[in-house]
Amino acid sequence: MEVAAVFTRRDPATVTTVSPDTKVAASADMLDYQDDIDVMILCGGSASDLPEMSPEIAKSFNIVDSFDTHATILEHLHKVDEPASAHGTSAIIGVGWDPGLFSLNRLLGESILPTGDTTSFWGEGLSQGHSEAVRGVKGVKDGVQYTVPIESQLQQARHGQSVHSDAGGRHKRVCYVVAEDENEQERIENEIVHMPHYFAEYDTTVHFISEDELRKNHSKMKHGGFVITSAETSPDQYHTVEFSADLDSNPEFTASVLVAYARAAAYYSKNGESGAKTVFDVPFSYLTPEPIDQVIKNLL
Amino acid sequence: MEVAAVFTRRDPATVTTVSPDTKVAASADMLDYQDDIDVMILCGGSASDLPEMSPEIAKSFNIVDSFDTHATILEHLHKVDEPASAHGTSAIIGVGWDPGLFSLNRLLGESILPTGDTTSFWGEGLSQGHSEAVRGVKGVKDGVQYTVPIESQLQQARHGQSVHSDAGGRHKRVCYVVAEDENEQERIENEIVHMPHYFAEYDTTVHFISEDELRKNHSKMKHGGFVITSAETSPDQYHTVEFSADLDSNPEFTASVLVAYARAAAYYSKNGESGAKTVFDVPFSYLTPEPIDQVIKNLL
Repeated sequence: MEVAAVFTRRDPATVTTVSPDTKVAASADMLDYQDDIDVMILCGGSASDLPEMSPEIAKSFNIVDSFDTHATILEHLHKVDEPASAHGTSAIIGVGWDPGLFSLNRLLGESILPTGDTTSFWGEGLSQGHSEAVRGVKGVKDGVQYTVPIESQLQQARHGQSVHSDAGGRHKRVCYVVAEDENEQERIENEIVHMPHYFAEYDTTVHFISEDELRKNHSKMKHGGFVITSAETSPDQYHTVEFSADLDSNPEFTASVLVAYARAAAYYSKNGESGAKTVFDVPFSYLTPEPIDQVIKNLL
Repeated sequence: MEVAAVFTRRDPATVTTVSPDTKVAASADMLDYQDDIDVMILCGGSASDLPEMSPEIAKSFNIVDSFDTHATILEHLHKVDEPASAHGTSAIIGVGWDPGLFSLNRLLGESILPTGDTTSFWGEGLSQGHSEAVRGVKGVKDGVQYTVPIESQLQQARHGQSVHSDAGGRHKRVCYVVAEDENEQERIENEIVHMPHYFAEYDTTVHFISEDELRKNHSKMKHGGFVITSAETSPDQYHTVEFSADLDSNPEFTASVLVAYARAAAYYSKNGESGAKTVFDVPFSYLTPEPIDQVIKNLL
Protein backbone atom coordinates (compact mmCIF):
# COMPACT_ATOMS: atom_id res chain seq x y z
CA MET A 1 0.00 0.00 0.00
CA GLU A 2 1.37 3.42 -0.83
CA VAL A 3 0.18 7.02 -0.73
CA ALA A 4 -0.40 8.15 -4.33
CA ALA A 5 -1.33 11.73 -3.45
CA VAL A 6 -2.90 13.99 -0.84
CA PHE A 7 -5.65 16.26 -2.19
CA THR A 8 -6.39 19.64 -0.64
CA ARG A 9 -8.81 22.51 -1.19
CA ARG A 10 -6.00 24.87 -0.12
CA ASP A 11 -3.12 25.89 -2.36
CA PRO A 12 -1.07 22.62 -2.45
CA ALA A 13 2.15 24.64 -1.97
CA THR A 14 0.97 25.68 1.50
CA VAL A 15 0.59 22.06 2.72
CA THR A 16 3.90 21.33 4.45
CA THR A 17 2.84 18.84 7.13
CA VAL A 18 3.14 15.76 4.89
CA SER A 19 6.44 13.97 4.27
CA PRO A 20 8.53 15.59 1.50
CA ASP A 21 8.19 12.62 -0.89
CA THR A 22 4.36 12.72 -0.75
CA LYS A 23 2.63 14.31 -3.72
CA VAL A 24 0.19 17.09 -2.74
CA ALA A 25 -2.37 18.09 -5.36
CA ALA A 26 -5.43 20.32 -5.68
CA SER A 27 -8.85 18.73 -5.06
CA ALA A 28 -9.99 20.28 -8.33
CA ASP A 29 -7.45 18.14 -10.23
CA MET A 30 -8.52 14.85 -8.63
CA LEU A 31 -9.80 13.26 -11.83
CA ASP A 32 -6.33 13.49 -13.42
CA TYR A 33 -5.23 10.81 -10.94
CA GLN A 34 -8.00 8.30 -11.59
CA ASP A 35 -5.63 5.69 -13.05
CA ASP A 36 -3.13 5.91 -10.18
CA ILE A 37 -5.49 5.54 -7.23
CA ASP A 38 -7.22 2.39 -5.95
CA VAL A 39 -9.02 4.03 -3.03
CA MET A 40 -9.66 7.56 -1.80
CA ILE A 41 -9.61 7.97 1.98
CA LEU A 42 -11.95 10.89 2.75
CA CYS A 43 -10.92 12.88 5.81
CA GLY A 44 -13.49 15.71 5.73
CA GLY A 45 -15.90 16.63 8.50
CA SER A 46 -19.33 15.03 8.86
CA ALA A 47 -21.29 18.28 9.19
CA SER A 48 -20.80 19.73 5.71
CA ASP A 49 -17.83 18.07 3.93
CA LEU A 50 -18.65 14.36 3.67
CA PRO A 51 -22.39 14.68 2.84
CA GLU A 52 -21.24 16.40 -0.40
CA MET A 53 -17.80 14.84 -0.98
CA SER A 54 -18.56 11.15 -0.49
CA PRO A 55 -21.39 10.88 -3.08
CA GLU A 56 -19.49 13.10 -5.53
CA ILE A 57 -16.08 11.38 -5.29
CA ALA A 58 -17.73 7.92 -5.29
CA LYS A 59 -18.70 8.62 -8.92
CA SER A 60 -15.04 8.33 -9.91
CA PHE A 61 -13.16 6.48 -7.14
CA ASN A 62 -13.54 3.72 -4.60
CA ILE A 63 -13.82 5.48 -1.24
CA VAL A 64 -13.80 5.02 2.52
CA ASP A 65 -15.07 7.78 4.79
CA SER A 66 -15.29 8.41 8.52
CA PHE A 67 -18.81 9.90 8.49
CA ASP A 68 -19.75 9.94 12.17
CA THR A 69 -23.15 11.60 12.60
CA HIS A 70 -24.98 8.60 14.06
CA ALA A 71 -28.44 10.12 13.47
CA THR A 72 -28.07 10.43 9.67
CA ILE A 73 -25.72 7.56 8.88
CA LEU A 74 -28.39 5.46 7.11
CA GLU A 75 -29.33 8.42 4.91
CA HIS A 76 -25.63 8.99 4.14
CA LEU A 77 -25.26 5.29 3.21
CA HIS A 78 -28.09 5.57 0.68
CA LYS A 79 -26.74 8.87 -0.70
CA VAL A 80 -23.35 7.21 -1.38
CA ASP A 81 -24.77 3.88 -2.56
CA GLU A 82 -26.61 5.47 -5.48
CA PRO A 83 -23.59 6.99 -7.33
CA ALA A 84 -21.31 4.08 -6.30
CA SER A 85 -23.75 1.50 -7.73
CA ALA A 86 -24.36 3.60 -10.86
CA HIS A 87 -20.65 4.11 -11.55
CA GLY A 88 -19.39 0.69 -10.45
CA THR A 89 -17.28 1.89 -7.52
CA SER A 90 -17.01 0.52 -3.97
CA ALA A 91 -17.57 2.64 -0.89
CA ILE A 92 -17.37 1.90 2.84
CA ILE A 93 -18.84 4.62 5.04
CA GLY A 94 -18.84 5.34 8.78
CA VAL A 95 -15.38 3.88 9.36
CA GLY A 96 -13.38 4.63 12.53
CA TRP A 97 -13.66 3.53 16.13
CA ASP A 98 -17.15 4.91 16.82
CA PRO A 99 -18.87 4.53 14.46
CA GLY A 100 -16.72 1.58 13.43
CA LEU A 101 -15.06 -0.82 15.86
CA PHE A 102 -17.47 0.10 18.68
CA SER A 103 -20.45 -0.49 16.35
CA LEU A 104 -19.07 -3.92 15.43
CA ASN A 105 -18.82 -4.84 19.10
CA ARG A 106 -22.35 -3.58 19.84
CA LEU A 107 -23.68 -5.81 17.02
CA LEU A 108 -21.56 -8.78 18.09
CA GLY A 109 -22.70 -8.45 21.71
CA GLU A 110 -26.37 -8.15 20.80
CA SER A 111 -26.19 -11.07 18.32
CA ILE A 112 -24.42 -13.50 20.66
CA LEU A 113 -26.12 -12.50 23.91
CA PRO A 114 -29.54 -11.28 22.70
CA THR A 115 -31.05 -11.40 26.20
CA GLY A 116 -28.31 -9.15 27.59
CA ASP A 117 -27.63 -5.43 27.73
CA THR A 118 -25.00 -3.62 25.66
CA THR A 119 -23.68 -0.29 26.96
CA SER A 120 -21.14 2.12 25.40
CA PHE A 121 -18.87 4.41 27.40
CA TRP A 122 -16.65 7.09 25.87
CA GLY A 123 -13.41 8.35 27.30
CA GLU A 124 -11.26 9.14 29.01
CA GLY A 125 -11.29 11.50 26.04
CA LEU A 126 -10.61 15.06 25.04
CA SER A 127 -13.80 16.81 23.90
CA GLN A 128 -13.21 19.66 21.41
CA GLY A 129 -16.58 21.35 21.95
CA HIS A 130 -16.41 21.27 25.73
CA SER A 131 -12.77 22.40 25.75
CA GLU A 132 -13.80 25.41 23.68
CA ALA A 133 -16.64 26.16 26.11
CA VAL A 134 -14.10 26.14 28.97
CA ARG A 135 -11.74 28.45 27.07
CA GLY A 136 -14.66 30.82 26.42
CA VAL A 137 -15.06 31.60 30.15
CA LYS A 138 -13.72 35.06 31.11
CA GLY A 139 -10.30 34.88 32.79
CA VAL A 140 -9.42 31.45 31.32
CA LYS A 141 -6.06 31.61 29.56
CA ASP A 142 -6.22 28.02 28.28
CA GLY A 143 -7.90 24.76 29.17
CA VAL A 144 -9.08 21.30 28.15
CA GLN A 145 -12.03 19.10 29.06
CA TYR A 146 -12.06 15.31 29.33
CA THR A 147 -15.15 13.12 29.23
CA VAL A 148 -14.58 10.29 31.73
CA PRO A 149 -16.74 7.19 32.34
CA ILE A 150 -18.03 7.00 35.91
CA GLU A 151 -16.27 3.98 37.44
CA SER A 152 -19.33 2.71 39.34
CA GLN A 153 -21.40 2.77 36.11
CA LEU A 154 -18.66 0.82 34.29
CA GLN A 155 -18.64 -1.78 37.07
CA GLN A 156 -22.44 -2.05 37.01
CA ALA A 157 -22.40 -2.62 33.22
CA ARG A 158 -19.75 -5.34 33.68
CA HIS A 159 -21.89 -7.08 36.29
CA GLY A 160 -25.15 -6.98 34.35
CA GLN A 161 -26.67 -4.37 36.65
CA SER A 162 -28.74 -1.53 35.26
CA VAL A 163 -26.92 1.69 34.34
CA HIS A 164 -28.10 5.18 33.35
CA SER A 165 -29.82 4.86 29.98
CA ASP A 166 -28.83 8.47 29.25
CA ALA A 167 -25.09 8.68 28.37
CA GLY A 168 -24.88 11.86 30.49
CA GLY A 169 -25.51 9.83 33.62
CA ARG A 170 -22.68 7.42 32.81
CA HIS A 171 -19.97 10.06 32.34
CA LYS A 172 -18.37 12.88 34.28
CA ARG A 173 -16.52 15.94 32.99
CA VAL A 174 -13.04 16.85 34.17
CA CYS A 175 -11.51 20.23 33.25
CA TYR A 176 -7.88 21.36 33.45
CA VAL A 177 -7.77 25.14 33.42
CA VAL A 178 -5.03 27.79 33.32
CA ALA A 179 -6.37 30.98 34.96
CA GLU A 180 -5.10 34.44 33.97
CA ASP A 181 -5.29 35.43 37.65
CA GLU A 182 -5.13 33.03 40.61
CA ASN A 183 -7.64 35.12 42.56
CA GLU A 184 -10.26 34.49 39.92
CA GLN A 185 -10.23 30.68 40.26
CA GLU A 186 -13.33 30.42 42.44
CA ARG A 187 -15.43 32.53 40.04
CA ILE A 188 -14.13 30.61 36.99
CA GLU A 189 -14.87 27.23 38.59
CA ASN A 190 -18.38 28.41 39.45
CA GLU A 191 -19.06 29.63 35.92
CA ILE A 192 -17.84 26.36 34.41
CA VAL A 193 -19.74 23.95 36.67
CA HIS A 194 -22.99 25.90 36.28
CA MET A 195 -22.76 26.40 32.49
CA PRO A 196 -26.08 25.06 31.11
CA HIS A 197 -26.05 22.15 28.58
CA TYR A 198 -22.26 21.80 28.78
CA PHE A 199 -21.61 21.21 32.48
CA ALA A 200 -24.55 22.06 34.77
CA GLU A 201 -26.25 18.65 34.26
CA TYR A 202 -23.03 16.68 34.80
CA ASP A 203 -20.67 15.70 37.58
CA THR A 204 -18.01 18.30 36.72
CA THR A 205 -14.59 18.82 38.32
CA VAL A 206 -12.25 21.74 37.64
CA HIS A 207 -8.49 21.48 38.28
CA PHE A 208 -6.35 24.62 38.04
CA ILE A 209 -2.88 23.98 36.65
CA SER A 210 0.05 25.94 35.23
CA GLU A 211 0.51 26.66 31.54
CA ASP A 212 3.61 24.42 31.53
CA GLU A 213 1.64 21.53 33.03
CA LEU A 214 -1.12 21.96 30.44
CA ARG A 215 1.39 21.84 27.61
CA LYS A 216 3.28 18.92 29.10
CA ASN A 217 0.38 16.67 30.18
CA HIS A 218 -2.63 17.70 28.13
CA SER A 219 -1.51 18.27 24.53
CA LYS A 220 -2.53 14.83 23.20
CA MET A 221 -5.81 14.19 21.37
CA LYS A 222 -6.58 11.30 23.74
CA HIS A 223 -9.78 9.29 23.39
CA GLY A 224 -11.22 5.81 23.72
CA GLY A 225 -13.94 4.00 25.58
CA PHE A 226 -15.70 0.73 26.31
CA VAL A 227 -18.47 -1.42 24.80
CA ILE A 228 -19.77 -3.87 27.37
CA THR A 229 -22.35 -6.64 26.90
CA SER A 230 -23.53 -8.57 29.92
CA ALA A 231 -26.13 -11.34 30.01
CA GLU A 232 -27.44 -14.21 32.12
CA THR A 233 -27.86 -17.27 29.86
CA SER A 234 -29.41 -19.51 32.53
CA PRO A 235 -30.03 -18.99 36.26
CA ASP A 236 -26.85 -17.69 37.93
CA GLN A 237 -24.69 -18.09 34.77
CA TYR A 238 -23.42 -14.61 33.86
CA HIS A 239 -21.32 -13.63 30.85
CA THR A 240 -19.60 -10.35 30.08
CA VAL A 241 -17.72 -9.43 26.91
CA GLU A 242 -15.98 -6.10 26.66
CA PHE A 243 -14.13 -4.18 23.95
CA SER A 244 -12.06 -1.17 24.94
CA ALA A 245 -9.79 1.35 23.28
CA ASP A 246 -7.21 3.59 24.96
CA LEU A 247 -5.92 5.99 22.31
CA ASP A 248 -3.26 8.68 22.63
CA SER A 249 -4.32 10.17 19.32
CA ASN A 250 -7.92 9.98 18.16
CA PRO A 251 -7.01 11.11 14.58
CA GLU A 252 -4.04 8.70 14.21
CA PHE A 253 -6.08 5.72 15.36
CA THR A 254 -9.09 6.68 13.20
CA ALA A 255 -6.68 6.91 10.26
CA SER A 256 -5.35 3.42 11.08
CA VAL A 257 -8.88 2.01 10.91
CA LEU A 258 -9.59 3.86 7.64
CA VAL A 259 -6.43 2.44 6.05
CA ALA A 260 -7.43 -1.14 6.94
CA TYR A 261 -10.92 -0.64 5.47
CA ALA A 262 -9.41 1.05 2.38
CA ARG A 263 -7.87 -2.36 1.66
CA ALA A 264 -11.36 -3.89 1.87
CA ALA A 265 -12.79 -1.29 -0.55
CA ALA A 266 -10.02 -2.17 -3.03
CA TYR A 267 -10.79 -5.91 -2.67
CA TYR A 268 -14.51 -5.30 -3.32
CA SER A 269 -13.66 -3.27 -6.38
CA LYS A 270 -11.36 -6.01 -7.74
CA ASN A 271 -14.14 -8.56 -7.16
CA GLY A 272 -16.56 -6.37 -9.12
CA GLU A 273 -18.76 -5.64 -6.08
CA SER A 274 -19.96 -2.04 -6.27
CA GLY A 275 -22.16 0.10 -4.01
CA ALA A 276 -21.87 1.46 -0.48
CA LYS A 277 -21.30 -0.71 2.58
CA THR A 278 -20.80 -0.30 6.31
CA VAL A 279 -18.38 -2.11 8.64
CA PHE A 280 -21.22 -4.57 9.36
CA ASP A 281 -20.95 -5.87 5.77
CA VAL A 282 -17.17 -6.36 5.69
CA PRO A 283 -15.64 -9.68 6.83
CA PHE A 284 -12.34 -9.24 8.68
CA SER A 285 -10.57 -11.35 6.03
CA TYR A 286 -10.84 -8.25 3.79
CA LEU A 287 -8.81 -6.10 6.20
CA THR A 288 -5.52 -7.97 5.99
CA PRO A 289 -2.89 -8.08 3.24
CA GLU A 290 -1.74 -11.55 4.43
CA PRO A 291 -2.77 -14.70 2.51
CA ILE A 292 -5.84 -16.13 4.22
CA ASP A 293 -4.30 -19.59 4.80
CA GLN A 294 -1.49 -17.91 6.72
CA VAL A 295 -3.97 -15.84 8.73
CA ILE A 296 -5.97 -18.96 9.62
CA LYS A 297 -2.81 -20.78 10.74
CA ASN A 298 -1.46 -17.89 12.80
CA LEU A 299 -4.52 -16.21 14.24
CA LEU A 300 -7.58 -18.48 14.17
CA MET B 1 -35.08 -19.82 15.42
CA GLU B 2 -36.22 -23.06 17.02
CA VAL B 3 -34.71 -26.38 18.06
CA ALA B 4 -35.95 -29.01 15.59
CA ALA B 5 -34.25 -31.96 17.30
CA VAL B 6 -31.27 -33.03 19.39
CA PHE B 7 -29.34 -36.01 17.95
CA THR B 8 -27.48 -38.44 20.17
CA ARG B 9 -25.33 -41.55 19.78
CA ARG B 10 -26.85 -42.82 23.05
CA ASP B 11 -30.32 -44.32 23.32
CA PRO B 12 -32.53 -41.21 22.89
CA ALA B 13 -34.74 -42.37 25.79
CA THR B 14 -31.81 -41.94 28.18
CA VAL B 15 -31.33 -38.24 27.31
CA THR B 16 -33.31 -36.43 29.98
CA THR B 17 -31.35 -33.16 30.34
CA VAL B 18 -33.15 -31.35 27.50
CA SER B 19 -36.49 -29.59 27.98
CA PRO B 20 -39.50 -31.96 27.73
CA ASP B 21 -40.83 -30.40 24.50
CA THR B 22 -37.51 -30.91 22.66
CA LYS B 23 -37.39 -33.86 20.26
CA VAL B 24 -34.47 -36.23 20.93
CA ALA B 25 -33.53 -38.59 18.10
CA ALA B 26 -30.81 -41.10 17.24
CA SER B 27 -27.82 -39.87 15.23
CA ALA B 28 -28.36 -42.79 12.89
CA ASP B 29 -31.77 -41.36 11.89
CA MET B 30 -30.46 -37.88 11.09
CA LEU B 31 -31.27 -38.03 7.39
CA ASP B 32 -34.99 -38.47 8.12
CA TYR B 33 -34.95 -34.85 9.37
CA GLN B 34 -33.28 -33.26 6.35
CA ASP B 35 -36.39 -31.27 5.38
CA ASP B 36 -36.97 -29.90 8.89
CA ILE B 37 -33.49 -28.60 9.68
CA ASP B 38 -31.78 -25.47 8.35
CA VAL B 39 -28.52 -25.88 10.28
CA MET B 40 -26.89 -28.57 12.37
CA ILE B 41 -24.92 -27.31 15.38
CA LEU B 42 -22.16 -29.87 15.99
CA CYS B 43 -21.18 -30.20 19.64
CA GLY B 44 -18.69 -33.07 19.47
CA GLY B 45 -15.08 -33.02 20.66
CA SER B 46 -12.22 -31.89 18.45
CA ALA B 47 -9.96 -34.90 19.08
CA SER B 48 -11.99 -37.63 17.41
CA ASP B 49 -15.64 -36.54 16.92
CA LEU B 50 -15.55 -33.45 14.70
CA PRO B 51 -12.80 -34.58 12.29
CA GLU B 52 -15.23 -37.36 11.25
CA MET B 53 -18.62 -35.78 11.92
CA SER B 54 -18.21 -32.37 10.29
CA PRO B 55 -17.22 -33.62 6.79
CA GLU B 56 -19.80 -36.41 6.95
CA ILE B 57 -22.77 -34.34 8.13
CA ALA B 58 -21.83 -31.46 5.77
CA LYS B 59 -22.81 -33.77 2.90
CA SER B 60 -26.46 -33.48 3.96
CA PHE B 61 -26.84 -30.39 6.16
CA ASN B 62 -25.57 -26.87 6.65
CA ILE B 63 -23.36 -27.03 9.73
CA VAL B 64 -21.48 -24.98 12.31
CA ASP B 65 -18.87 -26.62 14.51
CA SER B 66 -16.66 -25.60 17.43
CA PHE B 67 -13.52 -27.40 16.24
CA ASP B 68 -10.79 -25.94 18.46
CA THR B 69 -7.48 -27.68 17.75
CA HIS B 70 -5.57 -24.61 16.55
CA ALA B 71 -2.76 -26.65 14.96
CA THR B 72 -5.01 -28.53 12.52
CA ILE B 73 -7.76 -26.02 11.91
CA LEU B 74 -6.73 -25.26 8.29
CA GLU B 75 -6.67 -28.98 7.49
CA HIS B 76 -10.13 -29.34 9.08
CA LEU B 77 -11.41 -26.40 6.97
CA HIS B 78 -10.30 -28.12 3.77
CA LYS B 79 -11.73 -31.47 4.89
CA VAL B 80 -15.15 -29.87 5.43
CA ASP B 81 -15.01 -27.58 2.39
CA GLU B 82 -14.77 -30.51 -0.03
CA PRO B 83 -18.08 -32.27 0.82
CA ALA B 84 -19.85 -28.92 1.50
CA SER B 85 -18.87 -27.57 -1.93
CA ALA B 86 -19.71 -30.86 -3.65
CA HIS B 87 -23.14 -31.14 -1.99
CA GLY B 88 -24.07 -27.45 -2.03
CA THR B 89 -24.16 -26.98 1.75
CA SER B 90 -22.73 -24.19 3.91
CA ALA B 91 -20.37 -24.82 6.81
CA ILE B 92 -18.71 -22.51 9.34
CA ILE B 93 -15.97 -24.18 11.37
CA GLY B 94 -13.93 -23.19 14.44
CA VAL B 95 -16.75 -21.21 16.04
CA GLY B 96 -16.69 -20.24 19.73
CA TRP B 97 -14.72 -17.73 21.77
CA ASP B 98 -11.24 -19.13 21.06
CA PRO B 99 -11.05 -20.02 18.24
CA GLY B 100 -13.79 -17.57 17.32
CA LEU B 101 -14.23 -14.17 18.95
CA PHE B 102 -10.61 -14.06 20.16
CA SER B 103 -9.39 -14.95 16.65
CA LEU B 104 -11.47 -12.10 15.20
CA ASN B 105 -9.90 -9.66 17.62
CA ARG B 106 -6.38 -10.91 16.87
CA LEU B 107 -6.99 -10.32 13.15
CA LEU B 108 -8.63 -6.93 13.75
CA GLY B 109 -5.74 -5.79 15.96
CA GLU B 110 -3.07 -6.94 13.52
CA SER B 111 -4.88 -5.39 10.53
CA ILE B 112 -5.48 -1.99 12.11
CA LEU B 113 -2.23 -1.68 14.04
CA PRO B 114 0.20 -3.75 11.91
CA THR B 115 3.27 -2.31 13.65
CA GLY B 116 1.98 -3.36 17.07
CA ASP B 117 1.94 -6.55 19.12
CA THR B 118 -1.11 -8.71 19.77
CA THR B 119 -1.13 -10.95 22.85
CA SER B 120 -3.75 -13.43 24.07
CA PHE B 121 -4.35 -14.32 27.70
CA TRP B 122 -6.67 -17.07 28.90
CA GLY B 123 -8.50 -17.16 32.20
CA GLU B 124 -9.32 -16.85 34.90
CA GLY B 125 -10.55 -20.20 33.73
CA LEU B 126 -11.18 -23.73 34.91
CA SER B 127 -8.88 -26.21 33.19
CA GLN B 128 -10.28 -29.74 32.91
CA GLY B 129 -6.94 -31.47 32.30
CA HIS B 130 -5.12 -29.74 35.14
CA SER B 131 -8.03 -30.25 37.53
CA GLU B 132 -7.85 -33.96 36.81
CA ALA B 133 -4.11 -33.94 37.46
CA VAL B 134 -4.77 -32.35 40.88
CA ARG B 135 -7.45 -34.92 41.69
CA GLY B 136 -5.01 -37.69 40.76
CA VAL B 137 -2.65 -36.82 43.63
CA LYS B 138 -2.86 -39.28 46.52
CA GLY B 139 -4.90 -37.94 49.45
CA VAL B 140 -6.82 -35.41 47.33
CA LYS B 141 -10.55 -35.86 47.85
CA ASP B 142 -11.54 -33.26 45.26
CA GLY B 143 -10.08 -30.19 43.61
CA VAL B 144 -10.04 -27.72 40.73
CA GLN B 145 -7.37 -25.76 38.89
CA TYR B 146 -7.69 -22.28 37.43
CA THR B 147 -5.40 -20.78 34.79
CA VAL B 148 -4.95 -17.10 35.69
CA PRO B 149 -3.22 -14.36 33.67
CA ILE B 150 -0.28 -12.81 35.54
CA GLU B 151 -1.38 -9.23 36.27
CA SER B 152 2.04 -7.67 35.52
CA GLN B 153 2.10 -9.40 32.11
CA LEU B 154 -1.41 -8.10 31.35
CA GLN B 155 -0.32 -4.56 32.26
CA GLN B 156 2.82 -4.85 30.11
CA ALA B 157 0.75 -5.99 27.10
CA ARG B 158 -1.59 -3.03 27.65
CA HIS B 159 1.33 -0.59 27.70
CA GLY B 160 3.09 -1.94 24.61
CA GLN B 161 5.91 -3.47 26.64
CA SER B 162 7.30 -6.89 25.79
CA VAL B 163 5.72 -9.92 27.44
CA HIS B 164 6.63 -13.61 27.64
CA SER B 165 6.28 -15.00 24.11
CA ASP B 166 5.55 -18.41 25.66
CA ALA B 167 1.96 -18.52 27.04
CA GLY B 168 3.28 -20.39 30.10
CA GLY B 169 5.18 -17.30 31.21
CA ARG B 170 2.07 -15.14 31.04
CA HIS B 171 -0.12 -17.34 33.24
CA LYS B 172 -0.13 -18.79 36.73
CA ARG B 173 -1.95 -21.82 38.08
CA VAL B 174 -4.16 -21.66 41.15
CA CYS B 175 -5.50 -24.86 42.73
CA TYR B 176 -8.30 -25.30 45.28
CA VAL B 177 -7.94 -28.67 46.96
CA VAL B 178 -9.95 -30.71 49.47
CA ALA B 179 -7.57 -33.01 51.38
CA GLU B 180 -8.73 -36.34 52.82
CA ASP B 181 -6.54 -35.64 55.86
CA GLU B 182 -5.44 -32.19 57.08
CA ASN B 183 -2.03 -33.53 58.14
CA GLU B 184 -1.26 -34.49 54.55
CA GLN B 185 -1.60 -30.94 53.17
CA GLU B 186 2.13 -30.18 53.05
CA ARG B 187 2.92 -33.34 51.12
CA ILE B 188 0.00 -32.81 48.71
CA GLU B 189 1.01 -29.21 48.02
CA ASN B 190 4.57 -30.35 47.34
CA GLU B 191 3.48 -33.06 44.94
CA ILE B 192 1.25 -30.66 43.03
CA VAL B 193 3.71 -27.77 42.64
CA HIS B 194 6.51 -30.13 41.54
CA MET B 195 4.41 -32.17 39.09
CA PRO B 196 6.33 -32.06 35.77
CA HIS B 197 4.62 -30.57 32.66
CA TYR B 198 1.48 -29.65 34.59
CA PHE B 199 2.77 -27.42 37.40
CA ALA B 200 6.55 -27.55 37.93
CA GLU B 201 7.29 -24.98 35.20
CA TYR B 202 4.59 -22.56 36.38
CA ASP B 203 3.92 -20.17 39.21
CA THR B 204 1.55 -22.50 41.10
CA THR B 205 -0.44 -21.80 44.26
CA VAL B 206 -2.40 -24.39 46.25
CA HIS B 207 -5.26 -23.38 48.57
CA PHE B 208 -6.80 -26.00 50.85
CA ILE B 209 -10.53 -25.57 51.34
CA SER B 210 -13.49 -27.57 52.68
CA GLU B 211 -15.70 -29.75 50.53
CA ASP B 212 -18.61 -27.34 51.16
CA GLU B 213 -16.55 -24.38 49.97
CA LEU B 214 -15.51 -26.26 46.83
CA ARG B 215 -19.12 -27.06 45.98
CA LYS B 216 -20.30 -23.55 46.77
CA ASN B 217 -17.57 -21.48 45.09
CA HIS B 218 -15.95 -23.68 42.46
CA SER B 219 -18.69 -25.60 40.66
CA LYS B 220 -18.97 -23.27 37.65
CA MET B 221 -17.23 -23.93 34.33
CA LYS B 222 -15.72 -20.44 34.40
CA HIS B 223 -13.45 -19.22 31.61
CA GLY B 224 -12.53 -16.18 29.58
CA GLY B 225 -9.50 -14.10 28.77
CA PHE B 226 -8.06 -11.09 26.97
CA VAL B 227 -6.79 -10.21 23.49
CA ILE B 228 -4.67 -7.06 23.63
CA THR B 229 -3.09 -5.13 20.76
CA SER B 230 -0.78 -2.25 21.52
CA ALA B 231 1.11 -0.07 19.04
CA GLU B 232 2.94 3.24 18.68
CA THR B 233 1.71 4.91 15.46
CA SER B 234 4.11 7.87 15.65
CA PRO B 235 6.62 8.95 18.30
CA ASP B 236 4.98 8.93 21.74
CA GLN B 237 1.48 8.18 20.36
CA TYR B 238 0.39 4.86 21.85
CA HIS B 239 -2.82 2.94 21.17
CA THR B 240 -4.26 -0.10 22.91
CA VAL B 241 -7.36 -2.04 21.96
CA GLU B 242 -8.52 -4.89 24.13
CA PHE B 243 -11.24 -7.54 23.93
CA SER B 244 -12.09 -9.52 27.03
CA ALA B 245 -14.54 -12.20 28.09
CA ASP B 246 -15.56 -13.13 31.63
CA LEU B 247 -17.70 -16.24 31.39
CA ASP B 248 -19.44 -18.16 34.16
CA SER B 249 -20.09 -21.08 31.83
CA ASN B 250 -17.66 -21.88 29.04
CA PRO B 251 -20.15 -24.30 27.37
CA GLU B 252 -23.16 -21.94 27.60
CA PHE B 253 -21.22 -19.04 26.08
CA THR B 254 -19.69 -21.22 23.34
CA ALA B 255 -23.22 -22.40 22.52
CA SER B 256 -24.36 -18.74 22.31
CA VAL B 257 -21.65 -18.02 19.73
CA LEU B 258 -22.51 -21.19 17.77
CA VAL B 259 -26.19 -20.20 17.62
CA ALA B 260 -25.35 -16.73 16.20
CA TYR B 261 -23.11 -18.28 13.53
CA ALA B 262 -25.76 -20.92 12.76
CA ARG B 263 -27.87 -18.00 11.57
CA ALA B 264 -25.02 -16.99 9.23
CA ALA B 265 -24.74 -20.53 7.84
CA ALA B 266 -28.48 -20.47 7.07
CA TYR B 267 -28.14 -17.08 5.31
CA TYR B 268 -25.26 -18.39 3.18
CA SER B 269 -27.30 -21.42 2.23
CA LYS B 270 -30.30 -19.27 1.25
CA ASN B 271 -27.99 -17.10 -0.87
CA GLY B 272 -26.70 -20.22 -2.64
CA GLU B 273 -23.16 -19.84 -1.24
CA SER B 274 -21.78 -23.27 -0.42
CA GLY B 275 -18.47 -24.49 1.02
CA ALA B 276 -16.71 -24.13 4.37
CA LYS B 277 -15.87 -20.80 5.98
CA THR B 278 -14.29 -19.49 9.16
CA VAL B 279 -15.35 -16.56 11.34
CA PHE B 280 -12.90 -14.42 9.33
CA ASP B 281 -15.17 -14.78 6.27
CA VAL B 282 -18.47 -13.89 7.97
CA PRO B 283 -19.60 -10.24 8.16
CA PHE B 284 -21.36 -9.40 11.43
CA SER B 285 -24.51 -8.43 9.48
CA TYR B 286 -25.05 -12.20 9.04
CA LEU B 287 -25.22 -12.80 12.81
CA THR B 288 -28.35 -10.80 13.55
CA PRO B 289 -32.00 -11.57 12.84
CA GLU B 290 -32.81 -7.81 12.82
CA PRO B 291 -33.37 -5.96 9.50
CA ILE B 292 -30.05 -4.35 8.54
CA ASP B 293 -31.51 -0.80 8.26
CA GLN B 294 -32.67 -1.10 11.86
CA VAL B 295 -29.25 -2.41 12.95
CA ILE B 296 -27.49 0.51 11.22
CA LYS B 297 -29.82 3.02 12.89
CA ASN B 298 -29.52 1.52 16.36
CA LEU B 299 -25.97 0.24 16.55
CA LEU B 300 -23.71 1.83 13.90
